[in-house]
Amino acid sequence: MVTARASYSRIRTALEAIRDHPGLALQVVAGASAVLERYGNVAAIIERDGFAITARVHMMLEGENLMAMAKTTGIGLMELATVFDNLQPDIVVTVADRYETLATAVAAAYMNIPLVHIQGGEVTGSIDEKVRHAVTKLADYHFVSTEQAAERVRRMGECPDRVFVTGCPSIDLAAKVIAGTSLDFNPFIRYGGVGADLDISNGYIVVLQHPVTTEYHRARRDVWETLSAVSRIGLPTLWFWPNSDAGADGTSNGIRAFREIEKPANIHFFKNIGSEDFLRVLLHCRCLVGNTSAGIREGSFLGVPFVNIGSRQAGRDRGANVIDASYESDQIIAAIETQLTCSRFPGETIYGSGDAGRKIADLIASVPLTVDKRLNY
Amino acid sequence: MVTARASYSRIRTALEAIRDHPGLALQVVAGASAVLERYGNVAAIIERDGFAITARVHMMLEGENLMAMAKTTGIGLMELATVFDNLQPDIVVTVADRYETLATAVAAAYMNIPLVHIQGGEVTGSIDEKVRHAVTKLADYHFVSTEQAAERVRRMGECPDRVFVTGCPSIDLAAKVIAGTSLDFNPFIRYGGVGADLDISNGYIVVLQHPVTTEYHRARRDVWETLSAVSRIGLPTLWFWPNSDAGADGTSNGIRAFREIEKPANIHFFKNIGSEDFLRVLLHCRCLVGNTSAGIREGSFLGVPFVNIGSRQAGRDRGANVIDASYESDQIIAAIETQLTCSRFPGETIYGSGDAGRKIADLIASVPLTVDKRLNY
Amino acid sequence: MVTARASYSRIRTALEAIRDHPGLALQVVAGASAVLERYGNVAAIIERDGFAITARVHMMLEGENLMAMAKTTGIGLMELATVFDNLQPDIVVTVADRYETLATAVAAAYMNIPLVHIQGGEVTGSIDEKVRHAVTKLADYHFVSTEQAAERVRRMGECPDRVFVTGCPSIDLAAKVIAGTSLDFNPFIRYGGVGADLDISNGYIVVLQHPVTTEYHRARRDVWETLSAVSRIGLPTLWFWPNSDAGADGTSNGIRAFREIEKPANIHFFKNIGSEDFLRVLLHCRCLVGNTSAGIREGSFLGVPFVNIGSRQAGRDRGANVIDASYESDQIIAAIETQLTCSRFPGETIYGSGDAGRKIADLIASVPLTVDKRLNY
Amino acid sequence: MVTARASYSRIRTALEAIRDHPGLALQVVAGASAVLERYGNVAAIIERDGFAITARVHMMLEGENLMAMAKTTGIGLMELATVFDNLQPDIVVTVADRYETLATAVAAAYMNIPLVHIQGGEVTGSIDEKVRHAVTKLADYHFVSTEQAAERVRRMGECPDRVFVTGCPSIDLAAKVIAGTSLDFNPFIRYGGVGADLDISNGYIVVLQHPVTTEYHRARRDVWETLSAVSRIGLPTLWFWPNSDAGADGTSNGIRAFREIEKPANIHFFKNIGSEDFLRVLLHCRCLVGNTSAGIREGSFLGVPFVNIGSRQAGRDRGANVIDASYESDQIIAAIETQLTCSRFPGETIYGSGDAGRKIADLIASVPLTVDKRLNY
Repeated sequence: MVTARASYSRIRTALEAIRDHPGLALQVVAGASAVLERYGNVAAIIERDGFAITARVHMMLEGENLMAMAKTTGIGLMELATVFDNLQPDIVVTVADRYETLATAVAAAYMNIPLVHIQGGEVTGSIDEKVRHAVTKLADYHFVSTEQAAERVRRMGECPDRVFVTGCPSIDLAAKVIAGTSLDFNPFIRYGGVGADLDISNGYIVVLQHPVTTEYHRARRDVWETLSAVSRIGLPTLWFWPNSDAGADGTSNGIRAFREIEKPANIHFFKNIGSEDFLRVLLHCRCLVGNTSAGIREGSFLGVPFVNIGSRQAGRDRGANVIDASYESDQIIAAIETQLTCSRFPGETIYGSGDAGRKIADLIASVPLTVDKRLNY
Repeated sequence: MVTARASYSRIRTALEAIRDHPGLALQVVAGASAVLERYGNVAAIIERDGFAITARVHMMLEGENLMAMAKTTGIGLMELATVFDNLQPDIVVTVADRYETLATAVAAAYMNIPLVHIQGGEVTGSIDEKVRHAVTKLADYHFVSTEQAAERVRRMGECPDRVFVTGCPSIDLAAKVIAGTSLDFNPFIRYGGVGADLDISNGYIVVLQHPVTTEYHRARRDVWETLSAVSRIGLPTLWFWPNSDAGADGTSNGIRAFREIEKPANIHFFKNIGSEDFLRVLLHCRCLVGNTSAGIREGSFLGVPFVNIGSRQAGRDRGANVIDASYESDQIIAAIETQLTCSRFPGETIYGSGDAGRKIADLIASVPLTVDKRLNY
Repeated sequence: MVTARASYSRIRTALEAIRDHPGLALQVVAGASAVLERYGNVAAIIERDGFAITARVHMMLEGENLMAMAKTTGIGLMELATVFDNLQPDIVVTVADRYETLATAVAAAYMNIPLVHIQGGEVTGSIDEKVRHAVTKLADYHFVSTEQAAERVRRMGECPDRVFVTGCPSIDLAAKVIAGTSLDFNPFIRYGGVGADLDISNGYIVVLQHPVTTEYHRARRDVWETLSAVSRIGLPTLWFWPNSDAGADGTSNGIRAFREIEKPANIHFFKNIGSEDFLRVLLHCRCLVGNTSAGIREGSFLGVPFVNIGSRQAGRDRGANVIDASYESDQIIAAIETQLTCSRFPGETIYGSGDAGRKIADLIASVPLTVDKRLNY
Repeated sequence: MVTARASYSRIRTALEAIRDHPGLALQVVAGASAVLERYGNVAAIIERDGFAITARVHMMLEGENLMAMAKTTGIGLMELATVFDNLQPDIVVTVADRYETLATAVAAAYMNIPLVHIQGGEVTGSIDEKVRHAVTKLADYHFVSTEQAAERVRRMGECPDRVFVTGCPSIDLAAKVIAGTSLDFNPFIRYGGVGADLDISNGYIVVLQHPVTTEYHRARRDVWETLSAVSRIGLPTLWFWPNSDAGADGTSNGIRAFREIEKPANIHFFKNIGSEDFLRVLLHCRCLVGNTSAGIREGSFLGVPFVNIGSRQAGRDRGANVIDASYESDQIIAAIETQLTCSRFPGETIYGSGDAGRKIADLIASVPLTVDKRLNY
């Protein structure tokens, strides 16, 4: 079950390994923002990457509020019950902690289908924190990214023999990318987008800033501060559009309004980008800015200087490449300037060493198909 | 949010204490089986007990399968989002671990409403186990029944200052009942029901057996075994109809068919009964048979001999009043006969000492209204 | 799309003809009460009759009120949109006027799938009247039962070249049945049921009474009057359980209570029966009592004396075999006694002459696949 | 029930008259696109106009396809059943023929609430045609705009004493506007929007083009043709953003892409505008272009030259102010040039004379509250 761009990046090498595993048959269900043009049509990217999409789930209720988020999850639960009844999977795999993933987890648990959860046991801010650990309690197997995450999952009462440190599949992609040496494509030509034409040959900044769910009224203001900061820094900037969330429209409005009013000459905006290409862009940037977990996960492996804005990534295990900043423009500028003085950080393998996809496929092929579990205290 | 007869019994004294607390305003939402005639119209009982029902939620999809359970939860999530948006509660309280309670928990969590969970931290079989702990991870406060439950909730990573041992409100009712001395009403007159006319002056057996979700194909056979056992025992038997669950119809069919075919002369069937009256009936019975948690919770406090059938209550903290039996008729008979040789057990306060309702109301009135939390490791 | 026992009887020979037509591929979608044990598991009967069920749609929300009827239709609409998207049918066929059929019609119309409506243009009481004509306005083709129905559909503004008098497929079954000479099976042995053991060799009465939607509070009282009437008449009576509807529980309660209290010695109750067997039972009864359209449709063809209770069939084209009665016990008795003085009526072909199924299949194979239409004024 | 900007314009004076009527209490339910920022937040406009919004219904499922349209209607039906159960209205009023209005009509009909339909009996292209007449068959009262519409509704079998020619409330607004003499506000200052700064003192063109549901794959190309046409004409152009519909994103994409690529110097784009202000803008324009019914309805009353593109308005009763054009750029240019040679047409009262709101309120206050109806043949 893939519900967003970021989730897909974090699972893609596992999907490849499952597809290619002689003992497994892969069914990809694409849902939520992953099937919508507005969010970059991730389903099309998935197909372009050579996966067949077995079912598409339209579940996103329009609305700029938290109620719509709850209802979207309810609709998803109704829809996924049908999908699972049609497909009769032996195992359902869900990734990470977006709010709509709880629909996947509940549907699988209630229908007695063994549930594998990838990327449990991490600690962050916002509603994701509740979602992630609730999914852990519904899941039968836990394939986690770090040793600390494994320890947390076990302490939550999960049986140690159901918890496996596979590393994060997103690092698999990063490992592939790091094998190359230069940015081997032109992002403006390949991905279009809108905004300034930029010369990035002398270095560039990348921005990816998601709205923070429990603060969505501030989404517009928050993005404005970051826009101001990178606009004042003046370096060529590649800005990637955020995912869907309550508040996405606050962020979107902020971006549109800033463009109309401030006409920033150094920022180009992209709707979506292939996950490997994104990593290539990241690998060669002088600084990543925003609140994306990619800064912490892939960033630590790639050694990319990252300015982490606000509370969204608070609590995650992290490497030396991260500097925190508040939502204020001045602070963001200061943090970027600090990072620009470094070049690149040494890579760290906190989140895996590049073979997570294969490990995950092997485990799925070998674990017993059980749905019974009990608190291990 | 009350969704079933059993949930209401377990929360009723807390509802009273909240209603009567000068600093609190109570809104009762009745949903799922609690608003349906087929399951005894618990909403009417709630109103008869002097509570106004603020909203009714129709969410139960008909169907004898697990898919319907998942869809019911999805419908409930859509409906409850509207209810919470209309009522704007400061705090939502949810009880125990029925599958549909997850809809309450998700709606509250996603809409940033502080969530209180009553009866977390216990350990049982079946899907309830997953539901209960997932609700714990979505909840902001935990009012638990036993010290062991509190310890489990804390070990799952919840902050100790959010975990309170209040005891179980069901024990409050049991404490009231124990104050009386005899069965002061005639259950046949007060509750009607169908089946044999019985003389219970020389003792009687009580049966309450729920279908076990993950085994619903066997629900019909399981109930048949228990019916055979009590039929052969021959003592006057008061049988109480089970709650709604996937498989409820298997159980119902079993009961109907057994009545038509075997015409048991010693069993009378009741659809529903007030929670205090049920405890009075329990207090004076010679043996309780089935898989109801009441045998373990209120039963330990009242000292009622309980024959616990099957896996449904496995793992619960329990007193000396419980003997286990498998689903086989012969085993059930043997266990009942053992219990009939005892009279009554000494009461135990494992699940509380009778002031849980008041404690819960006081806590709700005093805890900070926060929705932020993080794994406490 | 089959949603109930009655709908299936009215479409079965058409399903056969479609399945056997070289130019057509049949997909049967079973939904609403047709997939539920409580209503006789029509889906199992459909399969026993040799049809594969392509999709099952669980859509019935429990609840004894009109709101549940509306929500059920909403759920059905969500579910059927998925089903039609999965199956990609060239044509959708819907039957008659039950409230949930509107979900089928709306889903097909909105998804640009040509919609065939069978049994439009008739006139009855209750919500069915609104549903039937609304479906007509959403449908692209109309296969009607009578010449008068065709005239009404055309007057509503439908193009004459889209309106076809095929007769009603239910008459096809009746024509098969009439070829036999005697009741060639024992209904008690074949269908079980509950209640009195009856000797029907000297004639019997058949009852089939549905709750009337807009009057559901009265459903319990209404059925009680009919029960009293046939109980006092004293002839052996085969009573068939009603369909699902808001109010079904009023009727069900009435029947259960009457059985417990009055213990009628001359009534046997059946949950469900194969449609051909029902017609055989009908053909040989001395009188049919209730508000089933079978009394008017198949009844006129078979010449069965019919006592039509209440307003449910008001306005339908009818033959000489029908006498009306109010809901009052005395009136029902008087009408039954009048009918018992007749033997059998001559058969009439108002609703078709036995080749409707074949005509429908031929038309479906030949009509253009169009969804454009406009009022023909 | 108001679900879109256009519906609100067509009902506003009736809302005023109902609110001000001594015998009536008004409850406004805003739903679908009317509660969404993306579509101009019509709910906020309604409140600014002095109406309280009693309930908001979030029902729009995201997705660029017909399935999402069907599911949106299903969600709306579920939600509106709750709303009507909470509000217990004596009468529900629904307007016109957007696809989601069928949810309102079905909910009211199934819950036995008398339903008033405004603007039935008209004839147009696309799915609206089916929706409109289906709503007619579910409605109990019909308040139509024209004598021809009344005749069509009666011919469809509705009782003449339930059909009333009130005229269209949109004409009430137009009558108010016509009383003024000049464009008394600056649309760029009042409504912002994006695109070229324009001098409109020497005349301007107005465009409003909706995607056509059954042709949504072509939406992007269609809007491009119109954009090209007005871009080549070169007159200052005020372009108003379309409503939500399957395909809205095709249209939106088309507009955004045209702006980026062609950078049209003579077009300014507005997201939304008050209905009276829109009429003022219309009254003073040299030509209206698109497929909005306002060109035919208010346009005929105001005498505004209208170039009607494509099939969306086919079949509507119309005045002398309309010229048709295909979707081709060249044809559109030719039609605009023809209209530019005229100045203004004489006003016609086909759709009412300015007192529809008052007539509607008076009728609602006086009609019997009945839900029984039958085909009047």
